[in-house]
Amino acid sequence: MGKSRYESGFEKLSEVDGEQGDKVIKSLNDIAPDLGKFIIEFAFGDIYTRPVLDLKQRELITISSLASLGGTENQLRVHINGALNVGVTPDEIVEVFIQCIPYVGFPRVLNAVAVAKEVFKNREII
Amino acid sequence: MGKSRYESGFEKLSEVDGEQGDKVIKSLNDIAPDLGKFIIEFAFGDIYTRPVLDLKQRELITISSLASLGGTENQLRVHINGALNVGVTPDEIVEVFIQCIPYVGFPRVLNAVAVAKEVFKNREII
Amino acid sequence: MGKSRYESGFEKLSEVDGEQGDKVIKSLNDIAPDLGKFIIEFAFGDIYTRPVLDLKQRELITISSLASLGGTENQLRVHINGALNVGVTPDEIVEVFIQCIPYVGFPRVLNAVAVAKEVFKNREII
Amino acid sequence: MGKSRYESGFEKLSEVDGEQGDKVIKSLNDIAPDLGKFIIEFAFGDIYTRPVLDLKQRELITISSLASLGGTENQLRVHINGALNVGVTPDEIVEVFIQCIPYVGFPRVLNAVAVAKEVFKNREII
Amino acid sequence: MGKSRYESGFEKLSEVDGEQGDKVIKSLNDIAPDLGKFIIEFAFGDIYTRPVLDLKQRELITISSLASLGGTENQLRVHINGALNVGVTPDEIVEVFIQCIPYVGFPRVLNAVAVAKEVFKNREII
Amino acid sequence: MGKSRYESGFEKLSEVDGEQGDKVIKSLNDIAPDLGKFIIEFAFGDIYTRPVLDLKQRELITISSLASLGGTENQLRVHINGALNVGVTPDEIVEVFIQCIPYVGFPRVLNAVAVAKEVFKNREII
Repeated sequence: MGKSRYESGFEKLSEVDGEQGDKVIKSLNDIAPDLGKFIIEFAFGDIYTRPVLDLKQRELITISSLASLGGTENQLRVHINGALNVGVTPDEIVEVFIQCIPYVGFPRVLNAVAVAKEVFKNREII
Repeated sequence: MGKSRYESGFEKLSEVDGEQGDKVIKSLNDIAPDLGKFIIEFAFGDIYTRPVLDLKQRELITISSLASLGGTENQLRVHINGALNVGVTPDEIVEVFIQCIPYVGFPRVLNAVAVAKEVFKNREII
Repeated sequence: MGKSRYESGFEKLSEVDGEQGDKVIKSLNDIAPDLGKFIIEFAFGDIYTRPVLDLKQRELITISSLASLGGTENQLRVHINGALNVGVTPDEIVEVFIQCIPYVGFPRVLNAVAVAKEVFKNREII
Repeated sequence: MGKSRYESGFEKLSEVDGEQGDKVIKSLNDIAPDLGKFIIEFAFGDIYTRPVLDLKQRELITISSLASLGGTENQLRVHINGALNVGVTPDEIVEVFIQCIPYVGFPRVLNAVAVAKEVFKNREII
Repeated sequence: MGKSRYESGFEKLSEVDGEQGDKVIKSLNDIAPDLGKFIIEFAFGDIYTRPVLDLKQRELITISSLASLGGTENQLRVHINGALNVGVTPDEIVEVFIQCIPYVGFPRVLNAVAVAKEVFKNREII
Repeated sequence: MGKSRYESGFEKLSEVDGEQGDKVIKSLNDIAPDLGKFIIEFAFGDIYTRPVLDLKQRELITISSLASLGGTENQLRVHINGALNVGVTPDEIVEVFIQCIPYVGFPRVLNAVAVAKEVFKNREII
């Protein structure tokens, strides 16, 4: 029998976000556990498991989307780590944000790069 | 002697956006010609010519950024065409927008897909 | 045996959005059918069927969210109709937008009220 | 003689936001006292005193609007407290944010729920 | 006896926005007349009548704010006309939008300039 | 021979943002030095050096744009300092934000005024 959406979502979440994603889900347990369930089942179970784009491409698209939206520092932290976990290089991450400058301006990009700097330092990349 | 920023930008604009990009620049001639110049020199001359990410990746990131920003139907039209011009497939374009659902919600994605549908029809893809 | 997420979602979509919702889903068939499936299964099957808030409250919250987000005229059209379908009065719809003024300013509210005016005219309410 | 807009606004602000609202207004005294006056007179005196929607409904709409706008953690803190003060239950507050997921995506909702968690802890609800 | 907020607001609205502003207010009469009243009393009566900045400066700030917000084409149309009415030159209007490029990116600016072009054509400036 | 874009940009950055701007650029050295270069060459070299609007007007427009965009506290800190550096008065800065209320609502304005308060305190203005 096939895996449930929750099971494939949880596997994908672990593959992409590792401990960081798990921490987000756990932090929801005492206030909105269904929110965590939806992230696992829908975002990771339904979306991340799809074909056509691979995980590296999905993370490039995700950090572009989060940087452009703004006010998403916590989610960028998770997904910059996620991008590194699935093999995106630090240079590629920075380059995604530079590609966004003409579309969203410097402030959104500076905020995203500041999160990247913090993540890279924690992982001793810089 | 090397090309000027304007020259390499114009070449890159033609490669990516073809006639659509040229039309945008020309429409600015009688009101804000320097805005067109900045798009060519900065967005295309400085940014699109950079290494690390190729043109296909840059267009995936750009349409993710534009869809997430919202209110960018005119720019999505240009860059969905641009993505097709540099070899992104229609399926990949739709998949970029589907990847954005968890981060920006359905309305931004529905608006972007509506533009994609219009572009695909004009190019007789669907 | 219980209904599938798709079945309960489709029922809820029909109850709330009537023909308008169906039209949105059908318009996606030739370009992104899974996007329509996710709207039915996730938005309507998982979220709208939940307890704690009733359908009228959910539509008040939805049109407040859409008006605040901006650039969502098509989705406001569907959900202002949806709000009327589940028993929200025209006065309550306008009042939701007026309550949003201090938080999002006049432009977002004027845009939402313009959509409400169009919907109310089509339904011969004004 | 009727109350002034300032007087009815101040009464309403106290009823909804209690000490939290008062603190916001006082923090403006040495830099932009008229900003505080406009919040009291316009937001609370003109808008919150209106009929058609009751205070509980107004707070549901307000927290939906603030969560959707993003970058409004300070204002969400005041109005999640305000919602509780006028009788909205913790479950209803969380459910408002869950209803917003399809329209604004997970990041805006995660940020709003994080503020709710902090408020609920301070009030020893969780 | 002094003018009411409505009276000074209406005077200021007429001075700034002329017929365009009047048309917006009248379009609200059959759906949300109080929204029109709040625009006159609060935006024009309370804010535009204040000292420290003159009307030209207020319109420069307003069109910068509207362009940055996005999805405000209708309001930009009114206030680009308003800016011209109070003596801002066409060159200054375009320059405001160019100054916004580094902060909000090209799409928001292109959209604003497109509205300016339409207004300038209607007034036979270009 | 004329100055390079970098040279005139760096001069303008020093004139407007002083040490604060320099700190931002330096913080990018170990992660995205080209981002700093683009801010200097494009934002300051190409845009701030243009005629039609003077530096005071450019800073009024910039802080209006940043406040309206939201999630730009770090950039507002730099440019509220920048506005003061080029001769904008504290009262004018606050008044810019008050002028934005009708267009973007109270939360964006409260966030901007909170940054202004912090800057004014650091410079012992209040």
